[in-house]
Amino acid sequence: MRIYLDYNAGAPLHPAARAAMADALDLAGNPSSIHADGRRARARLEAARRQIAALFGALDDARDRIVLTGSGTEAIHLAVAGLAPAGAAVVVPATDHPAMHGAAAAVAGARVATVGVDADGVIDLAAWTAALAAGPAVAGFAAVNHELGTIADAAALATAARRAGARVVIDAVAAAGRIALAPLTEVADAIAIASHKLGGPAGVGALWLAPGVTLAPLIPVGHQERGRRPGTENLLGVVGMGAAAAAVDLGAAPAVARRAARLEAAIAAIPGATIHGAGAPRTGATINARFAGVRGETLVMALDLEGVAASSGAACSSGSTAPSPVLRALGLDDEAARGGLRLSLGPATTDAEVDAVIARLPALVARARAAG
Amino acid sequence: MRIYLDYNAGAPLHPAARAAMADALDLAGNPSSIHADGRRARARLEAARRQIAALFGALDDARDRIVLTGSGTEAIHLAVAGLAPAGAAVVVPATDHPAMHGAAAAVAGARVATVGVDADGVIDLAAWTAALAAGPAVAGFAAVNHELGTIADAAALATAARRAGARVVIDAVAAAGRIALAPLTEVADAIAIASHKLGGPAGVGALWLAPGVTLAPLIPVGHQERGRRPGTENLLGVVGMGAAAAAVDLGAAPAVARRAARLEAAIAAIPGATIHGAGAPRTGATINARFAGVRGETLVMALDLEGVAASSGAACSSGSTAPSPVLRALGLDDEAARGGLRLSLGPATTDAEVDAVIARLPALVARARAAG
Repeated sequence: MRIYLDYNAGAPLHPAARAAMADALDLAGNPSSIHADGRRARARLEAARRQIAALFGALDDARDRIVLTGSGTEAIHLAVAGLAPAGAAVVVPATDHPAMHGAAAAVAGARVATVGVDADGVIDLAAWTAALAAGPAVAGFAAVNHELGTIADAAALATAARRAGARVVIDAVAAAGRIALAPLTEVADAIAIASHKLGGPAGVGALWLAPGVTLAPLIPVGHQERGRRPGTENLLGVVGMGAAAAAVDLGAAPAVARRAARLEAAIAAIPGATIHGAGAPRTGATINARFAGVRGETLVMALDLEGVAASSGAACSSGSTAPSPVLRALGLDDEAARGGLRLSLGPATTDAEVDAVIARLPALVARARAAG
Repeated sequence: MRIYLDYNAGAPLHPAARAAMADALDLAGNPSSIHADGRRARARLEAARRQIAALFGALDDARDRIVLTGSGTEAIHLAVAGLAPAGAAVVVPATDHPAMHGAAAAVAGARVATVGVDADGVIDLAAWTAALAAGPAVAGFAAVNHELGTIADAAALATAARRAGARVVIDAVAAAGRIALAPLTEVADAIAIASHKLGGPAGVGALWLAPGVTLAPLIPVGHQERGRRPGTENLLGVVGMGAAAAAVDLGAAPAVARRAARLEAAIAAIPGATIHGAGAPRTGATINARFAGVRGETLVMALDLEGVAASSGAACSSGSTAPSPVLRALGLDDEAARGGLRLSLGPATTDAEVDAVIARLPALVARARAAG
């Protein structure tokens, strides 16, 4: 039996998403077709869109406010590119996902300001505010950090940005399914999420837009998604994402956090262990640890051989031997920043799975240390 | 029982695609993760990519040569944007899909040349060659027209383009599953296809690239697809597209064409009927007809009430009352260009379904004419 503790790289498909997709396999029509098959496909697509919209609170205009995309990366890019005027200042925390850094760097003539964080990953609000003073700006930040599980003070960051006249893009890819998104809608112009982080299939994302926010598309062709994202819609994927969104149960978060806390306590008791972000508010579902003298990648491979799926950072940089940019931003040197081990839990994680990892990890760390 | 004659808008999911997707639902991993779950997902993704690659002939470097995208539209856009230098001449037939026209128009500073066609939709080779003489150019054209089913002389068009030093982008979205794609690879720099036109799920596309062709991504972030298309991969969708690609059986095309020919003969016998593109080479799976004095949209709705799914042109423009740009390019006036009725058949279309449409259509045309 595999133990899957890599929910931040992608959650297993939720049974509700699986059932909804199985049920939709017979929908032959193109949602743009006007015949009955097309109308059935359109109705199913829009029902799924409303399920996704509900993550952000009740929306009576989901078709205007939710743009379906091919990934969270695309949703982030669409928002930043669509809201940043050429030559804008784009302000991004150093710990953000590469998707946000890349979107900022891609704005024509952008002046990108990278804002530092403290040793726990808390974004420096004074530096953030100072960076925003530079003129017409877009402020982009992750509501929850993908490597650490730390929760940003979205209200403070967004309020500072709005005071400076900046547009606010929130990357909620690692937040969706872990914390409530509705409060973010009070302070954001756009919020990006991805299906596979909340139990839907991969290859689907969505962008929530505040009322009245309009965006230029990345591909200026086609009427789909009200001209904001062309191409025939990924009906099955969106249906799966919608069902996964509807199945999100934040009431289960405390139980996940209790299991993670138990695992984290056992990890902290291993000699030479450090827990990253422990001094900041966290979702309780992600543990990022380091064991002095041991590389994260080594432990990932050792755990894998024992049947446990974990990661050393973002899946997007798996296999690379580069130090984690997130841990570097926390002030770690290159070697220490190669030490991160990320264990991310989900609603289906069991006490027995946690027990099994607690039983195995100390010996794996000791063995890795002896070998290194 | 519905009769589905709108394969060009999207084929029903092929049983092989359905089975492959059902089988892949348990793959929890992110293909970028290095643990066993990630490696399993990666292996499945690459197996599906090889199935897609095989549509273009045997490729031993599928991972370099096939870029997976979120739609055919995105694949076309990626190719044109990636191959056209700023200020390039982009040469496109008037009958091409809006995705190609839009991609051409989006090239920075592009000089777009639209090349006319004859009354059967055959592209004017002399005008095409003349338009290509204007300097550094990209030539984009559909191998099979989406509304007419006419087959372009890809060899002649591409050879003229190459002689002029132009790069060649072929839209094979309406060609895949209808004609062999391997011959196109002899003359193209890039070839775009879409999953849902060949029996895979919607929301997946692919771009074949000739050896040595490199492309800038539309979103310059992320390592996926070798940096050419970022975002966590749509694993289930790609698995479905791969299975559908592997299930393509061009040996069944003559049987489809025989059924379509029988239907077309019955249509041609209806008073006031015209078959568009009848003088050009066609796939044999698509019939585009017009009945004097009757709008296509009216017939689409009448057929729908009788349980038959058809269309009046591209699904992308369904519901609009604009004349078909393809029929306009054939020389029809606006009113006549609103008259197109497209019936597109697929491998699962039966003789009984064709008989049922033959039995009903004359009365529907007569009734529409009387009402009009």
